[in-house]
Amino acid sequence: MSARVAVLGAGSWGTTFGKILADGGADVIMWARRPDMAREIDEAKRNSRYLPGINLPRSMRATHDITRALDGVDEVYLSVPSKSARETLKPLRTMLSRTDAPIVSLMKGVEKQTGLRMSQVIEEVIGCDRSRIAVISGPNLAREIAEEQPTAAVVSAHAADTAARLALTASNGYFRTFVNTDVAGTEFAGVLKNLIAVATGIVDGVGYGENTKASIITRGLVEMTDFAVAYGAQYETMQGLAGLGDLIATCQSPLSRNNTAGRLLGQGYTLDDVVAHMEQTAEGLSSVAPILQLAQAKDVDMPIVKQVKMVLDGTMEPRDIAPHLTTDDDTPQEETQHAASNGGGALRRAVERARDLFGDGGGRARRN
Amino acid sequence: MSARVAVLGAGSWGTTFGKILADGGADVIMWARRPDMAREIDEAKRNSRYLPGINLPRSMRATHDITRALDGVDEVYLSVPSKSARETLKPLRTMLSRTDAPIVSLMKGVEKQTGLRMSQVIEEVIGCDRSRIAVISGPNLAREIAEEQPTAAVVSAHAADTAARLALTASNGYFRTFVNTDVAGTEFAGVLKNLIAVATGIVDGVGYGENTKASIITRGLVEMTDFAVAYGAQYETMQGLAGLGDLIATCQSPLSRNNTAGRLLGQGYTLDDVVAHMEQTAEGLSSVAPILQLAQAKDVDMPIVKQVKMVLDGTMEPRDIAPHLTTDDDTPQEETQHAASNGGGALRRAVERARDLFGDGGGRARRN
Repeated sequence: MSARVAVLGAGSWGTTFGKILADGGADVIMWARRPDMAREIDEAKRNSRYLPGINLPRSMRATHDITRALDGVDEVYLSVPSKSARETLKPLRTMLSRTDAPIVSLMKGVEKQTGLRMSQVIEEVIGCDRSRIAVISGPNLAREIAEEQPTAAVVSAHAADTAARLALTASNGYFRTFVNTDVAGTEFAGVLKNLIAVATGIVDGVGYGENTKASIITRGLVEMTDFAVAYGAQYETMQGLAGLGDLIATCQSPLSRNNTAGRLLGQGYTLDDVVAHMEQTAEGLSSVAPILQLAQAKDVDMPIVKQVKMVLDGTMEPRDIAPHLTTDDDTPQEETQHAASNGGGALRRAVERARDLFGDGGGRARRN
Repeated sequence: MSARVAVLGAGSWGTTFGKILADGGADVIMWARRPDMAREIDEAKRNSRYLPGINLPRSMRATHDITRALDGVDEVYLSVPSKSARETLKPLRTMLSRTDAPIVSLMKGVEKQTGLRMSQVIEEVIGCDRSRIAVISGPNLAREIAEEQPTAAVVSAHAADTAARLALTASNGYFRTFVNTDVAGTEFAGVLKNLIAVATGIVDGVGYGENTKASIITRGLVEMTDFAVAYGAQYETMQGLAGLGDLIATCQSPLSRNNTAGRLLGQGYTLDDVVAHMEQTAEGLSSVAPILQLAQAKDVDMPIVKQVKMVLDGTMEPRDIAPHLTTDDDTPQEETQHAASNGGGALRRAVERARDLFGDGGGRARRN
């Protein structure tokens, strides 16, 4: 029997995800806040505002009555703006407490006032068992998936059987869902990648090419990983689809707001110019300062994010942003802190020796 | 005192690396096989064949006399085509045995007849202590570095102090060199990334976008890592500059031969067409079969590389290549084998349970 699922929120990602689920065989009902949008999806099988030109599956239904959407539901997917997650969920508390349906966040970001991740907001508002909560993330540019381009994603849940069950529902011929149990890491990745996308946007705007971008993505992933691991995430999650996969797609997408904001900065616009110029805010810009504070609290070094802050503050020229990013110190560094546990001690001692022997010597001209 | 270094080979990468070293303060002498090229570099500070328009450092010298190049040298960098590494090194055996200068491979690829990595060829031909041998790799598109675009790389040596010393020589304001001690992993990465670049080229040629490419890069890195770790490499190396960094740059570069070959295949050309069409062979194409054999010998699953082979063999349509890549099996999978060691057992059992409960049920329409 096919699963009966509700998708709350009919923006481009929510609607696309409804299509993924319907194409995978689920019985899908969308909830849209606006009655006209619900009617268009239900009758015309289109969402002309957010997915113009895309035919939605014939089996997909829609309603603006959230109680109807949730009636007899097996799985609930939540795709509203992160700032309205709490108010959307509050009236559903009683209704969702009466079922044991998994609640899946398709949202990225943290709640501004509380700093909570979306899965934590769900847990707090619904007051349900953590084993019911999951998040789905990955390199998920909605439009491309709506066009049925092959894509992979990851579903993460505290309970392994919840993750496995959801992965079966949320997979089809063009969308493959892997599983992990690192909810915090999966959610951190979705926040942190925006900061690195600003950095690659900056070097793009300056006119640097693929080496510089690849170097920043690679070293940026190390910073993301160090941060997330310090806050309890697993190393592997950051190397997977929610971390690396989403990071690459965001850094390469001209549609990413964070990437665009970086590109404008790289071209010489000030932060005020950029904010005035862009219709919607780029979340990466406002996360820089709080993330650096949290990093400092755990003694995590984030040289790329630090340099993004200097560019935002106007204290560094965009063209001086670089993947080494410790411009006043040329001591060789190991690639990963993680590696330090495997014989890294010898490397560190060697680096110190080499510095004494060869460092700071004559003839080493500093450039740029 | 500045290091006296020789760079053997004056192609685009060798010449660019000479510039990196000179800009870092080293006393550089280039060896070019062709006397006219050596003279142009030495006198005009140009290499108009391989780096047109780039001004080389004034301090850089060049010769076509290899004995002169190696006279009194502190460090030797080798950048000749991998197929001529052995014949270039043979006559230098005695000379290089009399010094303790580190010998650094800037080359990617394996020797065709023997399957040896370049560091192994150096060790075999020179017969020197392994502690002297190193390799440098990373996201290193020569032209972009010659234009002084910020880039990071990694130097890998069996001996940590050799790596640290070389990292100091091979760093400057636009080029930052990190260190590791995983020579095999660093070299495997340079070979394996070409196979994934063919795959991203194929989906590019078909017309798929950033999600598909990001999914293939992310899952491709898992395959590369599983393979390399099975053959003794370290996990972290594959996530670093030589693995991930080089992979991203190669997959995004329109200049990569492997990427181009993939793009032509994706556009519908047959393998014979592609080989006939391209002036130089794309190394990734010829590595597919031997790598898959080696993978099978260690029971490593490489679904993306397998599908590249099916496209090459003409048994799969390019548009069916996909990041899930196990088209006949929709069982949820964990993201990494590595993760399996941390609670992965529970995940695996959950996946089996979910499959019994929800899998193969009605309504699950397979598409594509």
